[in-house]
Amino acid sequence: MQAINIGILGLGTVGSGVIKLIKDHQKKISGITGRQLVIKRAVVHNPDKKRNVDLSGITVTTDINDLINDPDIQIVVEVMGTVEIAKDYIERLLRAGKHIITANKDLIAIHGSQLAELADKNHCDLFYEASVAGGIPILRTIVSSFAADRIIEVKGIVNGTTNYILTQMSQNNVSFNEALKSAQKLGFAEADPTNDVAGIDAAYKMIILTQFAFGMNVTLTDIKTTGIQKIELADIKQAEELGYKIKLLGIAKLIDKRISVSVGPVLIPASQPLAAVQNENNAVLVTGAAVGETMFYGPGAGELPTANSVLSDIIAVTKDIVMKTTGSRFNEFSQEGKTASKENVFYPYYISLKVKDRPGQMLKITRIMSEINASFHLIIQTELDEENARVVMTTHQVSESQLDAILNGISKLKEISVIAAYKILPGQQ
Amino acid sequence: MQAINIGILGLGTVGSGVIKLIKDHQKKISGITGRQLVIKRAVVHNPDKKRNVDLSGITVTTDINDLINDPDIQIVVEVMGTVEIAKDYIERLLRAGKHIITANKDLIAIHGSQLAELADKNHCDLFYEASVAGGIPILRTIVSSFAADRIIEVKGIVNGTTNYILTQMSQNNVSFNEALKSAQKLGFAEADPTNDVAGIDAAYKMIILTQFAFGMNVTLTDIKTTGIQKIELADIKQAEELGYKIKLLGIAKLIDKRISVSVGPVLIPASQPLAAVQNENNAVLVTGAAVGETMFYGPGAGELPTANSVLSDIIAVTKDIVMKTTGSRFNEFSQEGKTASKENVFYPYYISLKVKDRPGQMLKITRIMSEINASFHLIIQTELDEENARVVMTTHQVSESQLDAILNGISKLKEISVIAAYKILPGQQ
Repeated sequence: MQAINIGILGLGTVGSGVIKLIKDHQKKISGITGRQLVIKRAVVHNPDKKRNVDLSGITVTTDINDLINDPDIQIVVEVMGTVEIAKDYIERLLRAGKHIITANKDLIAIHGSQLAELADKNHCDLFYEASVAGGIPILRTIVSSFAADRIIEVKGIVNGTTNYILTQMSQNNVSFNEALKSAQKLGFAEADPTNDVAGIDAAYKMIILTQFAFGMNVTLTDIKTTGIQKIELADIKQAEELGYKIKLLGIAKLIDKRISVSVGPVLIPASQPLAAVQNENNAVLVTGAAVGETMFYGPGAGELPTANSVLSDIIAVTKDIVMKTTGSRFNEFSQEGKTASKENVFYPYYISLKVKDRPGQMLKITRIMSEINASFHLIIQTELDEENARVVMTTHQVSESQLDAILNGISKLKEISVIAAYKILPGQQ
Repeated sequence: MQAINIGILGLGTVGSGVIKLIKDHQKKISGITGRQLVIKRAVVHNPDKKRNVDLSGITVTTDINDLINDPDIQIVVEVMGTVEIAKDYIERLLRAGKHIITANKDLIAIHGSQLAELADKNHCDLFYEASVAGGIPILRTIVSSFAADRIIEVKGIVNGTTNYILTQMSQNNVSFNEALKSAQKLGFAEADPTNDVAGIDAAYKMIILTQFAFGMNVTLTDIKTTGIQKIELADIKQAEELGYKIKLLGIAKLIDKRISVSVGPVLIPASQPLAAVQNENNAVLVTGAAVGETMFYGPGAGELPTANSVLSDIIAVTKDIVMKTTGSRFNEFSQEGKTASKENVFYPYYISLKVKDRPGQMLKITRIMSEINASFHLIIQTELDEENARVVMTTHQVSESQLDAILNGISKLKEISVIAAYKILPGQQ
């Protein structure tokens, strides 16, 4: 049987997983593709490091040129991380006619269009299924199953670390800091968790999802991103009493042909499938004009789930090589897109306030609301500490600019401060 | 732009949906495929019937030969239903070199392998994404995203009618018959609901899912199928008190390289995502050795969701035509498979009994259990009517043959009868 030789950049968790899966499922893969997949070379930073995977038959080197100049190698898998070096390597590999598979979401979110063009020019495949929601085949599904539909909205729990932390806070009644510590102990959060807990990782994934679902390019600055660091347990519990779960949710939504993308804590009705996504799992809910709501759920990371997505990309490239159809874009859907303005993005909000416990406070708040024509759905007052009350209100639909005005108005009051202001997803039916 | 001419068999709900979607999304589809899709001819039973769709430009006829003999037509969509006539038509169309897309699950479950071979021989595509879980792209996802993984289990809520009825029973505290009547009024159940409520429809879908996930062919007689007609509200409520939802669940599972497929009411832990699937929605949970649990959720039927799946098949065929790669099988994964024997299929069970209310009854039951080495997890006794108690027990893991022995033993007791015996899915973590 003819072989397809593969190079690999990086032998960390995902790289090792890819090698294991190819060895374990050689027979099934050959049955489907008619080719034998062979990992021929690996490029790593430190070739002397002990690795938890059988490297027999694989030449391990530190020089990218060994891959670029090996005419036998047709496919290169990039799982080394970092943005700029990976970009440089991939560009040189594409120019040498190698097909590329990467799990590098930062790279794709920042330089994806540019790399796709270069791949085009060199008739190469460039796939990156593993870059969003590791074990969930969401990108290829959008490409192949929503081509005839018009996607209206994509909502995703796309960061496992934050979902794990929020689940632990809710289930074990612990603070953000305690939950973060236990997540770090168990390996669900990194020593420096900023990228995850501040929502940056989720925002990068939403950039890629937006590109696939709407054919539109947005950048990090187009996305209003709020992290979970300031979420208080009391608000998680209050939301639950009202029938909601708080999740870090990415939302990309068409509003009058313009796109609105945000990442932040959102109240999701407990009856909705997204609310049931627990711990480190991910889920993406796609709303199509024709098909309605479909949700794709699974592990967001991990050695084998992510390696499995890389493998499905390798198989897709291999099929393309066999059928001589390489060089078409992973996502061919592209259209002009402007971002929606704050005046046109409407949600109900959950607003939690710290209010000095004395008469007349509620009047100040209602005055601010009525000045901008916003109205409450409900107000709940509970004790916060000896001097202060926690006032939680849920609003009817207000625009983002109205919300800004409310928060701005409250910030000027001496005895009232904002603890939280989160979107509320509308319930079903 | 070059046109791809399409014929359509049947202008019912799905057929009309396909025509609507093609007209509405012409531009997007052309952008992706580089071709203009044109519905040229439709074959129907009654051409004079008024239809709720714009048929301008489409020649409507009653004669299948008009499709077979039209050399312009490359793709035929079969959405007429019925098994034998559809099979005859499709065979003649395949011999004439037409690519086929069908939503006909009965046809594919019964004659799929045979039709796939005929398609092979004639270098034609034969796709049927819409045949299982209408709006969920589950078949193509298994093909493209689990190729490198080994699927261990597929579990599905794949019948919308029964899930709607069970949801209504649970939410509105009504009997099966009342819920069925309201489902019929709202169009979620047919006048003759047998195929749905007896689990036959779900079993057909499990045949197709088993073929895709395990490459194995099973038939209706290999599947132990139980319907929902005899489910009592009291057992739904009792299960909920124990932390479970009762769903009609199809399970296809590898046990020592053999396959076990069943369809029946199952107790699912409320914390699992499958338990949150409500009303007419469907969901398929795939467990891969590498990837772990992934779930695909969405509408199981309906004009536009199903039409969208048909459209994604049409686009896949069109891409194949453009790239001259038609004729490869929808699912190329195939392996020998025997069905597992009853001795090797283990589950915990929920058993609900009607027991004449007098001393010594429990002793009889425990004697039967201990004779076959089975043990209880818990026993709950509640009042059923003036003379009888309802005894609910959950067992530890027992094999299907042990379960048969338990039920057989109980059936011989005069004052005890079995109301229900349902599998219990193990909880997570």
